[in-house]
Amino acid sequence: MKFEILHKSKKSNARVGRIYTKKGVIETPNFVPVATNGTIKCLDSVLVENLNVQLMFCNTYHLILQPGSDLIEKAGGLHKFINRNLPLITDSGGFQAFSLIHRSVTSELKNSTIKQRSQNIINISEEGILFRSYRDGTKILLTPESSIKAQKQLGADIIVSFDELPPYHIDKHVLKKSLERTHRWEKRSLEYHLNHKKDQAIYAVIHGGTDPEFRKQSAQYLTNLPFDGFGIGGSFGKNRLEMLNMLETLMPNLPTDKPNHLLGIGDLESIKNCIPFGIDTFDSSYPTKAARHGVFFQKNYTHFNIKKAEFSITFKRPVHGCICYTCSNYTAAYIHHLFKSNEQTAMHLASIHNIHTMMEVMCDYRQKIMNNMI
Amino acid sequence: MKFEILHKSKKSNARVGRIYTKKGVIETPNFVPVATNGTIKCLDSVLVENLNVQLMFCNTYHLILQPGSDLIEKAGGLHKFINRNLPLITDSGGFQAFSLIHRSVTSELKNSTIKQRSQNIINISEEGILFRSYRDGTKILLTPESSIKAQKQLGADIIVSFDELPPYHIDKHVLKKSLERTHRWEKRSLEYHLNHKKDQAIYAVIHGGTDPEFRKQSAQYLTNLPFDGFGIGGSFGKNRLEMLNMLETLMPNLPTDKPNHLLGIGDLESIKNCIPFGIDTFDSSYPTKAARHGVFFQKNYTHFNIKKAEFSITFKRPVHGCICYTCSNYTAAYIHHLFKSNEQTAMHLASIHNIHTMMEVMCDYRQKIMNNMI
Repeated sequence: MKFEILHKSKKSNARVGRIYTKKGVIETPNFVPVATNGTIKCLDSVLVENLNVQLMFCNTYHLILQPGSDLIEKAGGLHKFINRNLPLITDSGGFQAFSLIHRSVTSELKNSTIKQRSQNIINISEEGILFRSYRDGTKILLTPESSIKAQKQLGADIIVSFDELPPYHIDKHVLKKSLERTHRWEKRSLEYHLNHKKDQAIYAVIHGGTDPEFRKQSAQYLTNLPFDGFGIGGSFGKNRLEMLNMLETLMPNLPTDKPNHLLGIGDLESIKNCIPFGIDTFDSSYPTKAARHGVFFQKNYTHFNIKKAEFSITFKRPVHGCICYTCSNYTAAYIHHLFKSNEQTAMHLASIHNIHTMMEVMCDYRQKIMNNMI
Repeated sequence: MKFEILHKSKKSNARVGRIYTKKGVIETPNFVPVATNGTIKCLDSVLVENLNVQLMFCNTYHLILQPGSDLIEKAGGLHKFINRNLPLITDSGGFQAFSLIHRSVTSELKNSTIKQRSQNIINISEEGILFRSYRDGTKILLTPESSIKAQKQLGADIIVSFDELPPYHIDKHVLKKSLERTHRWEKRSLEYHLNHKKDQAIYAVIHGGTDPEFRKQSAQYLTNLPFDGFGIGGSFGKNRLEMLNMLETLMPNLPTDKPNHLLGIGDLESIKNCIPFGIDTFDSSYPTKAARHGVFFQKNYTHFNIKKAEFSITFKRPVHGCICYTCSNYTAAYIHHLFKSNEQTAMHLASIHNIHTMMEVMCDYRQKIMNNMI
């Protein structure tokens, strides 16, 4: 993998770059749609390539449970299995395994479903995390080594080191312990990676929660190791402001010559706020999840819900000026009707539109940074 | 509408023909996929045109409940509303309204859900059927005139006259009464149609259940009226044999110079058995319904379920030799995985395959009839 910066904005830390991989180029900043089980929900790989999705995010956790990394290796790797000829990134599985306990900050605050889900976790130790498959109850031990091994079997262009996801509400002392263990796990991930070289890049995941000092320490420790790029993970706080404060402290501590990735963020407002800090890639299932609920994104960073009554008689394209397949072929009234009739076609068409729009939005950002407008 | 017979088989009553409509040609025999709410489930109109679906079947009953025939008329008609530039056929709504009471023969035998559903029917009289919308409880009166009026608003190329659907288990005397009323309703449908001329053809629906004499009487009565084609409806009996016996009696009583349509039949085995009787078109939601359950059709009239364990490691196209989008791009193992992961993409890809296969199968039949092999 090679990373090249084409332009650094004169107005902020935003930059336009290119990540070169064997499977193709990723222009940055870019949005990385999530294809949890090896497909972006309601879409298929060939369609996604035609939507100009340059990097797609698959979840190792889900793929090792179904169909298993051995099977995907046997199929010739993830690219071949899902028929995608462009770059892929996989995560370590840690996030999903731990979020079985903690869930999101919101559900953590609500204290919902935690008990039931945490029953799936059997043990967390220095070695890794032992949990039960939510599919068939099988015991699975996920360690830095087994995660990287699985990610090597999957064969994505970019892989991510195994980390611990601590909850948002955590004692500073416990967070420090967690951070130290995450660092040890990430180092073990890197070592396993370097000892089993394949044509893959590996990203570290910077942790430290919302604690500025810990974030700096994490950046310092991990950037001293030969990782190819840096994911920003862990808890970003309970709202967007806390996330932006965290980025403000953290970003000056990351090397400018390596790509970075903000994990799990994909709403239009957050992307807008994060771009000036110099974030290169964002992944999120939000644009397609929103699509499945009728939410249509617009290039001006706003969105609307096509299920609203007013759209029942809107006999024109859902988004004015949009040239996506959906907007070129169907009216808002028809898509409104398909949602009202619970037709899956509605979700398919809305997903196409939102992914197309995300790609357009990111293209606009690159242009604006080139022109020092951001 | 014009109907032309290109070839009559020397081996059976099978024939190859062409139905010419303003929106395009329908080669017969052909399969007519069902797009209940104005879309074939999991597919979209442009894709369906590319799959070479020459005639598509929409359900008036569902469309008048959501979004309403007034709205579709306002949108410029059904073709424009759903963005389909090829021929469409709509039914009268009678079948769905009555099947609220009777359900299928199977559920009739099981006596299931009849009570609950029949509560939606308020009254059946000489005028028509008064029922409650399952969507919002609104009272709706469906009569021959209101059905044809709605179908004129929708503007399909072929419309169907309003009929009564009697249950399978019915006293001969009651069936006779029902048949007579159906004939009166169909005559009223035709009259309304002729008094409100639009560029549409109208099909009658032959009734009489499994009673040979009634079927003959129905054919005799309806073929003496200036209908453009003849649907075959009502109860076909409790199994395929009873249906074939019915067709054997009925078919010689239909004029050979007008197209006929077997309502609601679309499984490969039934089509195979019905073609020699000279059936021109078949509609059914079965191929797409089966697809959504993982059933893949094959051109040799067999099918298999891709969810079976053996396909988890089948790293080749689902159907050998199939050139559809799905088989060209994805392996059986991947589609098996998508079904196991409950991804809607699986249903989308399977639906593409089954519709493609149905079109290929019908093309084969036409070729075989041309060669007097059927």
